Amino acid sequence: MSLVSQLMDALQIMPGVGPKSAQRLAFFLLQKDRSGARHLASILNQALDQVKECQQCRTLTEHNVCALCSNDQRSWRQLCVVESPADIIQIEQATDYKGRYFVLHGKLSPLDGMGPSELKLNQLIDILAKPECQELIVATGSTVEGETTAQYLAGLAEKGGIKASRLAHGVPLGGDLEYIDNNTLAHAFAGRTHY
Amino acid sequence: MSLVSQLMDALQIMPGVGPKSAQRLAFFLLQKDRSGARHLASILNQALDQVKECQQCRTLTEHNVCALCSNDQRSWRQLCVVESPADIIQIEQATDYKGRYFVLHGKLSPLDGMGPSELKLNQLIDILAKPECQELIVATGSTVEGETTAQYLAGLAEKGGIKASRLAHGVPLGGDLEYIDNNTLAHAFAGRTHY
Repeated sequence: MSLVSQLMDALQIMPGVGPKSAQRLAFFLLQKDRSGARHLASILNQALDQVKECQQCRTLTEHNVCALCSNDQRSWRQLCVVESPADIIQIEQATDYKGRYFVLHGKLSPLDGMGPSELKLNQLIDILAKPECQELIVATGSTVEGETTAQYLAGLAEKGGIKASRLAHGVPLGGDLEYIDNNTLAHAFAGRTHY
Repeated sequence: MSLVSQLMDALQIMPGVGPKSAQRLAFFLLQKDRSGARHLASILNQALDQVKECQQCRTLTEHNVCALCSNDQRSWRQLCVVESPADIIQIEQATDYKGRYFVLHGKLSPLDGMGPSELKLNQLIDILAKPECQELIVATGSTVEGETTAQYLAGLAEKGGIKASRLAHGVPLGGDLEYIDNNTLAHAFAGRTHY
């Protein structure tokens, strides 16, 4: 197989890249932006060599302890638990949260063989045992597994005598009621807030 | 800047990849499929090192002369001119064409400074001078520049005493008339074929 075809195949491991876009990407990389492509290959290799999980929060970083965890300004009073490193970026961009994070790298899903031990929650339990820790903010997704995980983590927090909270569910900002699914709407209706 | 952010930036050189998909791709490559990512980086590097233009048809290949050009079974009687290497793949997949190819790597576009000399058409003129060559099939796109290029190439062929042909325009197969633009429809109407 020619190198160009091999490159097209290799590009198709990426989510959302089918044969047609792989072909487009391959020719783009080889024809239009060779220096960008060279840079991409080298950064990808470097990242694969060096990026690992932060020893504290388990997000992805090339350091032993990530930038967020090494920031002394951030408080240990609040700990926000997320499913993936991408969620941290989202929360950092959207909010002014100044507490700590913990990445689950998954969610409880007994059918897929993901139990509390697969999620290696011992590290989380250790953090919750810190005397400074006062609130566990559970920011898992609103799927069945996300909710199950949230329930379980809330239970853990309670055992440790720590307040647990969950992201609010409801109508997204800028969302027309017409286009919102019934479950969300029922939830938003039942959980209406008073002026 | 962290390596993960650098990777996200590097991924954004690719067409159709914005900040959000770059983030998704970066985490996919670093978390979900490290071996695939490693392979991608190495193939991309290899391709950048070795892939160049075929000396004959100018498609992209790691050999001096590409597989199509080194195939003795293909006839020199027909020469199909395309804008880019991707077009060759398309035509090979769709048709049973057994002639030769020539890649322009662009199209005539005086406004962008692309004249006949920028397209290095001398090589094409040399091929057209071969005694075996009988037909020039112009398979450039149906844009203004594609048509201009087609006209110019047809002129070249005529000068060399060679028949020139152009891909047919009309209603795409499976296309509902309702959704076809007026220009195409007018063209298809005027160029209707008789039973």
